[in-house]
Amino acid sequence: MLSFESDYIMGAHPEVLRRLTETNFEPLPGYGSDIYTESTAKKIREACKCPDADVHFLTGGTQTNSVIISTMLQNYEGVIAATTGHISGHEAGAIEATGHKVITLPEHNGKLDADEVKSYLDTFYADANHTHMVFPGMVYISHPTEYGTLYSKHELTRLAEVCRHYDIPLFMDGARLGYGLMSYQTDLSLPDIAALCDVFYIGGTKVGALCGEAVVFTHNNAPRHFLTMVKQHGALLAKGRLNSVQFDALFTDDLYFKISRHAIDMAEQLKDMFRQKGYKFFLESPTNQQFIILENEQMQKLSEQVRFSFWEKYDDTHTVVRFATAWSTTQEQLDELKAII
Amino acid sequence: MLSFESDYIMGAHPEVLRRLTETNFEPLPGYGSDIYTESTAKKIREACKCPDADVHFLTGGTQTNSVIISTMLQNYEGVIAATTGHISGHEAGAIEATGHKVITLPEHNGKLDADEVKSYLDTFYADANHTHMVFPGMVYISHPTEYGTLYSKHELTRLAEVCRHYDIPLFMDGARLGYGLMSYQTDLSLPDIAALCDVFYIGGTKVGALCGEAVVFTHNNAPRHFLTMVKQHGALLAKGRLNSVQFDALFTDDLYFKISRHAIDMAEQLKDMFRQKGYKFFLESPTNQQFIILENEQMQKLSEQVRFSFWEKYDDTHTVVRFATAWSTTQEQLDELKAII
Amino acid sequence: MLSFESDYIMGAHPEVLRRLTETNFEPLPGYGSDIYTESTAKKIREACKCPDADVHFLTGGTQTNSVIISTMLQNYEGVIAATTGHISGHEAGAIEATGHKVITLPEHNGKLDADEVKSYLDTFYADANHTHMVFPGMVYISHPTEYGTLYSKHELTRLAEVCRHYDIPLFMDGARLGYGLMSYQTDLSLPDIAALCDVFYIGGTKVGALCGEAVVFTHNNAPRHFLTMVKQHGALLAKGRLNSVQFDALFTDDLYFKISRHAIDMAEQLKDMFRQKGYKFFLESPTNQQFIILENEQMQKLSEQVRFSFWEKYDDTHTVVRFATAWSTTQEQLDELKAII
Amino acid sequence: MLSFESDYIMGAHPEVLRRLTETNFEPLPGYGSDIYTESTAKKIREACKCPDADVHFLTGGTQTNSVIISTMLQNYEGVIAATTGHISGHEAGAIEATGHKVITLPEHNGKLDADEVKSYLDTFYADANHTHMVFPGMVYISHPTEYGTLYSKHELTRLAEVCRHYDIPLFMDGARLGYGLMSYQTDLSLPDIAALCDVFYIGGTKVGALCGEAVVFTHNNAPRHFLTMVKQHGALLAKGRLNSVQFDALFTDDLYFKISRHAIDMAEQLKDMFRQKGYKFFLESPTNQQFIILENEQMQKLSEQVRFSFWEKYDDTHTVVRFATAWSTTQEQLDELKAII
Repeated sequence: MLSFESDYIMGAHPEVLRRLTETNFEPLPGYGSDIYTESTAKKIREACKCPDADVHFLTGGTQTNSVIISTMLQNYEGVIAATTGHISGHEAGAIEATGHKVITLPEHNGKLDADEVKSYLDTFYADANHTHMVFPGMVYISHPTEYGTLYSKHELTRLAEVCRHYDIPLFMDGARLGYGLMSYQTDLSLPDIAALCDVFYIGGTKVGALCGEAVVFTHNNAPRHFLTMVKQHGALLAKGRLNSVQFDALFTDDLYFKISRHAIDMAEQLKDMFRQKGYKFFLESPTNQQFIILENEQMQKLSEQVRFSFWEKYDDTHTVVRFATAWSTTQEQLDELKAII
Repeated sequence: MLSFESDYIMGAHPEVLRRLTETNFEPLPGYGSDIYTESTAKKIREACKCPDADVHFLTGGTQTNSVIISTMLQNYEGVIAATTGHISGHEAGAIEATGHKVITLPEHNGKLDADEVKSYLDTFYADANHTHMVFPGMVYISHPTEYGTLYSKHELTRLAEVCRHYDIPLFMDGARLGYGLMSYQTDLSLPDIAALCDVFYIGGTKVGALCGEAVVFTHNNAPRHFLTMVKQHGALLAKGRLNSVQFDALFTDDLYFKISRHAIDMAEQLKDMFRQKGYKFFLESPTNQQFIILENEQMQKLSEQVRFSFWEKYDDTHTVVRFATAWSTTQEQLDELKAII
Repeated sequence: MLSFESDYIMGAHPEVLRRLTETNFEPLPGYGSDIYTESTAKKIREACKCPDADVHFLTGGTQTNSVIISTMLQNYEGVIAATTGHISGHEAGAIEATGHKVITLPEHNGKLDADEVKSYLDTFYADANHTHMVFPGMVYISHPTEYGTLYSKHELTRLAEVCRHYDIPLFMDGARLGYGLMSYQTDLSLPDIAALCDVFYIGGTKVGALCGEAVVFTHNNAPRHFLTMVKQHGALLAKGRLNSVQFDALFTDDLYFKISRHAIDMAEQLKDMFRQKGYKFFLESPTNQQFIILENEQMQKLSEQVRFSFWEKYDDTHTVVRFATAWSTTQEQLDELKAII
Repeated sequence: MLSFESDYIMGAHPEVLRRLTETNFEPLPGYGSDIYTESTAKKIREACKCPDADVHFLTGGTQTNSVIISTMLQNYEGVIAATTGHISGHEAGAIEATGHKVITLPEHNGKLDADEVKSYLDTFYADANHTHMVFPGMVYISHPTEYGTLYSKHELTRLAEVCRHYDIPLFMDGARLGYGLMSYQTDLSLPDIAALCDVFYIGGTKVGALCGEAVVFTHNNAPRHFLTMVKQHGALLAKGRLNSVQFDALFTDDLYFKISRHAIDMAEQLKDMFRQKGYKFFLESPTNQQFIILENEQMQKLSEQVRFSFWEKYDDTHTVVRFATAWSTTQEQLDELKAII
């Protein structure tokens, strides 16, 4: 059946598979000591214009969030996130399982507001009883957010300033970073992000790879003995090549950016289609995830012809659903969808 | 350079890559709800002659050990393992990081002795102060062990009896299970293992896959809400197909067993070669890992022509090294090695 | 200086000290196996009219919350609490440090609303994605709450019904339980609480003891091997007599209830005093903690003559402060306060 | 019944109770901000001749071990201890519950050997695979040990040198420190210990107090935000006075040392008594715990007249038992014992 259910319904971009196949019989040492781990790290540092970055490859989003947060925080610290942040609600308590609190602040179209973060930090340190509280030790954002929205350069700069003022790292979950970078409506480039964040990751799983997230510590600030802690988390692949070769393909000839742009092109068409047919959007998303409010019966009927994701209840008779495009979405699929809606 | 460094130096068996490629553009839902997860689980249940098994796919060995042990133990329990068990020494404290002690007992060629396990359990419960001690809540073994050795059917049966007597699960780490099953010197079949163990896994990473371990809870005894805990560990792949499709290939037409047998054939040749040349073995291994004692200068010289693994210091002038064959080892590589040693 | 800063500014009630002194040279075995642990447990079971209760003694509130919650929850579960619950904000992340999320719901004068808890649970189980979320595994309330307020019998019954419907335990933090039970405005008795909660504790530290909290699992539902887990938390006193003898004193001749009533009598006088002088209350508290809104300059001036606790900012020119009475508050202290305010 | 079961069978030294009673109605702020916490810390710094020490008060031994170890170690580190170390076997996995491995080395009369520690560290760092292993991040010893034995000044100096060479802290569990300091056969003073260890604690629970351990970070090296982590562990008493006032008594007029010396005097008499009667000692202990090998029937008969502790099985017909003296042991009790044995 036609499916816009998510951006991880297909396998990998053919070029990624090709590189895996091409390198398959090269004998390579394990656990991240293969040559592709180093050469791809170099490519990523260049793409980020960030020569001092420590680059590491992990396998999936929750794993990456958990590893980064738990290895960068002190025991007495928690991480600030939006109430709708992925780590707040949809990772089964992965952060708390490492012993750290997720401190939630209000979301605005999925985003944190720098002034509210500052206000929280100001209040925390002003509170005479804060020694009995979890110290805010990091700010977590995702870009795009859970709602497909994006931080502007101004907004990200403001967040970075607040973090630097309080000397805590700014961490960007980029599980869908490609779709954010290639949005028609962003003023943030990859080097901008590398300059403003202390750590972020470039998502592969949802942008053309079978799995894999490239973690960038932007100023040689990977935690000491990071690989040992990755191993401890069960996150160190014996065949590290699986991650590094895939990213090698994605960061050769701008493949990562091209396929992300394709998904955005498809999303903009999809958006137009729904808009023209009079559908109501839950919010304005400039990326590959589009959130539409459907009347429940209409949702039921539509679901017989095309797959999409249930998102959340809107009211007693309406539901928010998500249609996602991806690197793999085709014009034919869009045309088919158009005929249905 | 010629390499017998490990059984994870190559990518995947070509048939595994072929199946990944073949299924690449099938839209499949994520997080283990794809059809291959279910159909492959069925194939594995059949191969194990274990119709009541719960089968789940995880990504790597340390992750799998950590997930299984921490989800099956109670807070007050630890896991018994040999001093040389993988979880005891080489997983960077992954078990302890989940809050559980690894209780070590002596190893005998890498194996636990059932009588010693029984004696430990007898003594524990006889000790009036055992409420101040970690309860032994599981027995962990690997098969093959860290030294390539195998449990006999009798030995495994005895361990299972002890575990059942004390009502604690017997867990077999089968990261290299194929090489154990296809050894010339084993009397343990996959159904035997499924009948004797409470949980075990069939290793993919080291036996033909890019990654992946198939976990078998042998009597519908997967912990309640297991997938939620897998997610919490950061071990639930968005593209679950990556694991399930690979195992689909491995468990079609007995591929897993055939390629494992090939590795064993290669290992037996390698063993003969070293034996004929008068090399001294550290111990008798019936599987794909061979441990040889080299005089240090000889080791240095050999390392200029072929890659192998340093294992441990033997004495001041000798070192134990490991040569591993795998599904990917070729006759040509063996011939080349023969010329060198 | 005159102090109404908290209910833990003094040592112990003289009768408690007397019993400690009187029993000081009785040789008693350690770790909770002394006769007073058993005899006092019996007294508490009787006071609770709860013959099937498991009673254990711990040392402080945060410790008790952490031990109870982490030993009763499964790995995949978190605990529901009000945003203002003690565990949510003022225990330095003690719950998260054991790997569990605190799931916060809105507070109403410090209390959870049963309908909102039910609605949260309904929505959770209705959500198709709840396997990726933390399971709500317990409801935590305190009585009195952080704001000194009390659940009515009707409210507590409703909460218990919701918990039973979803088969999760209802846990009451009774760090100040005595002051709740002896309030002029409560309809909840100790046996009512024992009948409605699955576990609760009777606070000693803030009600006449030097330390100590008596945990009551109301229907023989103490987690298996509870003492081993108490030991693991570093919460098992070698001299268990320190807790048991103090509670023996408190539960002899209704001392616990009498001294709690005295604190309430003092609080009611204090309330009248402030009311008559026209002070504004932040909310209506029926127990020993009174929250008053002071103009900031007035607060400054008052603080030169009497100690009280800063609670929270009210607005730019006003602050909420707390005056607490206790078992140790005297009429003379109240008279002195009256002269000041 | 006459009891030599342990050194925690009695309550507190009368002078300790007297000070608690005397200060009972002084209003004091909570959570370690009372004046006695500071003034007693000063007394302890002086007794240690260690002006730069950070001194904190905790409540019990397991709690103290768990707090110190988990707050000083990094995520990738474990703690080295003797196989018979208290943390290795008798704390129900309290260290592992905080995520850290206890790395065990052989014991020699309960003690670690500096050369073996050095050798372990040398081998660890020489091992090419040590990034997959738990880093040794601290050395834990107890003094007296589990077997009542003591480190000599030379032995402790050697351990300190090894630790300093590898830049890891040396931690001494001093749950029974008084009895070690006052032994007839020690050449280690409190200032020596403070000079050689990075952190240690002065046990109160087993040396005259109802509870309480005084932690000494010897060179202002308390972990950052230590109190917040103490709170997180549930180890911060609301009535901090309970610990500080008891230690105030113990460190006034050398009470701690005098009562410890008394216990040693009693132990030496007890030792002579047993020796004269021809009893066989398990080992030579210079402190208050004496380990005696009894024939099992003899043990049974003796246990009808005097309480002692079962320690461990010696052989099929003999058992090791412990007789402990304490600050509270009287000449009358010894005389009574003499008549029995």
